[in-house]
Amino acid sequence: MKWKRSERLVDMTHHLLEHPHKLIPLTYFADLYDSAKSSISEDLGIIKETFEEKGIGLLATVPGAAGGVKYIPKLQEPEIRNIMQELINELSHSDRLLPGGYLYMTDVLGNPDMMNRIGKVFATAFAHQKIDVIMTVATKGIPIAHAIARHLNVPVVIVRRDSKVTEGSTVSINYVSGSSRRIQTMVLSKRSMKSGQRVLITDDFMKVGGTMNGMKNLLEEFECTLAGVAVLVEAEHKDEQLVEKYLSLVKLREVSEKERKIELQEGNYFSNGGF
Amino acid sequence: MKWKRSERLVDMTHHLLEHPHKLIPLTYFADLYDSAKSSISEDLGIIKETFEEKGIGLLATVPGAAGGVKYIPKLQEPEIRNIMQELINELSHSDRLLPGGYLYMTDVLGNPDMMNRIGKVFATAFAHQKIDVIMTVATKGIPIAHAIARHLNVPVVIVRRDSKVTEGSTVSINYVSGSSRRIQTMVLSKRSMKSGQRVLITDDFMKVGGTMNGMKNLLEEFECTLAGVAVLVEAEHKDEQLVEKYLSLVKLREVSEKERKIELQEGNYFSNGGF
Repeated sequence: MKWKRSERLVDMTHHLLEHPHKLIPLTYFADLYDSAKSSISEDLGIIKETFEEKGIGLLATVPGAAGGVKYIPKLQEPEIRNIMQELINELSHSDRLLPGGYLYMTDVLGNPDMMNRIGKVFATAFAHQKIDVIMTVATKGIPIAHAIARHLNVPVVIVRRDSKVTEGSTVSINYVSGSSRRIQTMVLSKRSMKSGQRVLITDDFMKVGGTMNGMKNLLEEFECTLAGVAVLVEAEHKDEQLVEKYLSLVKLREVSEKERKIELQEGNYFSNGGF
Repeated sequence: MKWKRSERLVDMTHHLLEHPHKLIPLTYFADLYDSAKSSISEDLGIIKETFEEKGIGLLATVPGAAGGVKYIPKLQEPEIRNIMQELINELSHSDRLLPGGYLYMTDVLGNPDMMNRIGKVFATAFAHQKIDVIMTVATKGIPIAHAIARHLNVPVVIVRRDSKVTEGSTVSINYVSGSSRRIQTMVLSKRSMKSGQRVLITDDFMKVGGTMNGMKNLLEEFECTLAGVAVLVEAEHKDEQLVEKYLSLVKLREVSEKERKIELQEGNYFSNGGF
C-alpha cells in the first residue's frame, strides 16, 4: 500500500519520537511506506524544520551507506527556564516542610509528566556527549534516571544499600555520607556495567555530595569514567563540596522551620554549561 | 504566523503523544496555529486514521463546548505478542540463573525502551478503566510503575520497607511474605493517596503474591480501591495464590539449577482479559 505524505509525516514523527538517539536508515522508511528515498528525504526536511521551530529537538542526518537520520531530544532555553520556575513554585509551598528542615518532594518524583520533562532537560545538556549508562541510587533517584535514560537511549543501573539475591554477585564499597559523616555501604551488581563505560550519575537531592561521591568511587571499581552529574535539587551548605562539577535544576537556599519558609532559586544548570 | 498542514501534523502528533489520556480542546490547536477549527478537525482525522492503522493508539473525540481530543495509547495484539516473545527469549538465557533458582532481570528493568513498551502493554489493558494512582514497592517495580503511569497520565506512589524522614508521616502495615512466611513491613507516606482513589498495583515479579497482597492491605488503610494488578513475570508454584485477578506478561514455568534450564511461557495477559 502506498502512503500519502500526510500519513507518512504522522507515522514518521511517532517513530522518531519513540526512538531518540537511534540512527534510522532512510531505507527503513522507504521500504515501510513503499516510497522513493527522495520523498522520504523531503518528509524528513519538513519534520526537521518543525522539530527545530517548535523546540522539540534536532534531526541529525548522517550521510553515506551506513547513514540515516537520528532524533536528538533538545529543549530550548525558555522551556527549560519554565520547567525550573514550575519546580520552584511547586516546591516552595510551606506544607512541604518536614521536621529537621527536610523537603517533601515524593509527589513531584511520582509525577510522570514532570519526570518526562526533567528527563528531557538533562538529556538536552548531555545530548552531544558520549553517555553509555545512567547510574543512580535507590529509591528516589530512579524515576529521574529512567526519564533521562529514555531520552538518551541508554540503560539505567541502580545502586542499592543492601545486597539482594536477585542481583547475583555484587561489588560493594563503603563511603562517608556527606553531612552525617556516617559510614555507609553501596552495592552494585557485577553484571551491570562493563569497564570503560562513560557514566552519568543522577539523584533527586544533593547537599555536600557524599552519595554522589560514593557512586563516583563505585565507578572506579568498575573501571568506568564519570561523564557527568545531574541533580534535581541541590542544597546550600557551608561544608566542602565533594563533587566538583554537576548540573542542578533548583537550589534550596534556606529553610526556616520556625517561620515555615522555603527559599528556592534556579540551580546552576545554565551557569555550569547545561545549555 | 500561519502553519502549513504538514507542519501542523508533525507538531500535533508530537503534542498528542506527549500528553496521553489528556483532553485537549480543539481551540488550543486552532489558536496555536492560527487556523480554523475545521482545518484542525481535518488534521486530527488524518492523525486518528494513521494512529489506528499503525497500532499507535486511539484518538477519542469528545464533542461539545468542554470537548476536545484525547490520545489513548493502545497497542494491537500482534505487537503485544511480539513484546512477550522478546521477553521470553531474553529471559530464558541460562546465564540469568542465580543461586536458589532466582532469575537475573535487573538489566531488563534498566532498559528504558523495553520499559516503555511494557508500560504501553499494561496501559492498553487499563486504557478504558478509571485509574487514579499506580502503586509499587521499592525497588524493582519502580521503572514498570513509571512506564505505565506515563502512558496513563497518573501519578506513581512507592511503598517502602522502611520509614524515611523525607516521607513525612507514614502509614505502616505488617504482612506475611508469600513463600518465606516471614513477617514484613510496608510503609507509605500519608500524603501519597486520598481516600476513594482507584489504584493499579504493579511489580516485576510475583510468586504466591504476598507482596501484592500486602499492598492490597495497605490500600484499605487509605480507603482506596484495587483497580488491577499488573506483573511482569509470574512464577509457577504449588501454594495457594493470594491475589485472585492479575495480568502477567511472562510465566516462569520451571527453573532447573542442575540442568541450567529456564522454562518460560506467555503470561495470562490475553487469557485474563488484558486485551
